Amino acid sequence: MKDRGILIVVSGFSGAGKGTITREIIQRSGKYALSISATTRAPREGEQEGVHYFYKTREEFERMIADNELLEYAVYQGNYYGTPKAYVLQQLAEGRDVILEIEVQGASKIKAQVPECVRIFVTPPTAEELKRRLMGRGTENQAQILGRMKRAVEEAPYMPLYDHILINDDLDKAIEAFERIVQSEHMKQTFIGEITDELIEIVKGE
Amino acid sequence: MKDRGILIVVSGFSGAGKGTITREIIQRSGKYALSISATTRAPREGEQEGVHYFYKTREEFERMIADNELLEYAVYQGNYYGTPKAYVLQQLAEGRDVILEIEVQGASKIKAQVPECVRIFVTPPTAEELKRRLMGRGTENQAQILGRMKRAVEEAPYMPLYDHILINDDLDKAIEAFERIVQSEHMKQTFIGEITDELIEIVKGE
Repeated sequence: MKDRGILIVVSGFSGAGKGTITREIIQRSGKYALSISATTRAPREGEQEGVHYFYKTREEFERMIADNELLEYAVYQGNYYGTPKAYVLQQLAEGRDVILEIEVQGASKIKAQVPECVRIFVTPPTAEELKRRLMGRGTENQAQILGRMKRAVEEAPYMPLYDHILINDDLDKAIEAFERIVQSEHMKQTFIGEITDELIEIVKGE
Repeated sequence: MKDRGILIVVSGFSGAGKGTITREIIQRSGKYALSISATTRAPREGEQEGVHYFYKTREEFERMIADNELLEYAVYQGNYYGTPKAYVLQQLAEGRDVILEIEVQGASKIKAQVPECVRIFVTPPTAEELKRRLMGRGTENQAQILGRMKRAVEEAPYMPLYDHILINDDLDKAIEAFERIVQSEHMKQTFIGEITDELIEIVKGE
């Protein structure tokens, strides 16, 4: 029997590079599925159905809520955003690891629904570097920068709840660390079976 | 104020290389303290008091148990073995990370005493490779090999209880992964303080 996939929940500070890391990992390895959110927000220029989001009407979304078809959902700036359950569970059942990028409160809801998920929090290597990244390249206005800082202050207390902190100092190293985490989580699930099946036979045989 | 140290509890399969990893990490980095066990076993040739073990009489050891001076203890082949509490707690208070190498049941007892400890389980990369290492180089007798296999079968079910599985495929990579784990665990503890102190000021200032 094929191993079950692992649900990898990725959160992190704004500017920590979680989007880049997950995109690169999916492209390089070719073996992860990416969870795609549903939203009532209108598609933006260049966005595609089923790639960036599943676009739903308000009625459709509320029906999904009523029918318990979402792992979690939230309202942001007047629009619904949520994680469709069926796609994620199907990928996991087929043995594919699923990456789900989500902010800290959504991550807590996912954990409640899928307790065996693995939660990774992406962060710059130091508080100083985080501040530098939040400040941006001087092209954003002060309100945007302050908004991101406020958000970081709200997010930081969630860090200890994560199973792994992924320090993004260097993209290649961060990707390697990410893959080691996933590999080791698979070992937690399957190593026991593999080792005991064979060794128990040998030990019993004596 | 200096950060508190982290207690790093290291377990792993026989032949997984946990001894090599911890020894190398301590030598290379020069920054970890190693927890030293107390035992009633007699010193073997070449062993030194306070380096390999703290050697105690049975009376001394039982007094330590009675006075709650041990984080955990067990009896093995008629001798007591235990982890003196004072040294570990003092190193942690001084901000030094402490490595404690211990088998799986001892690790559970440590977790009960020091809940904020980080548990790492060292394993070869595959069940096949584990078997190969347990078999040894053909110099051990069959009883020793079987004893190690039996032990591995008993230890495997503890793997999922560990915070991190450290795959020892390559010594340098395993050491790097170990240090990333410790670094990220420190971030869980201190990042919040660092980030909030500074950012809260900026956010409030507006």
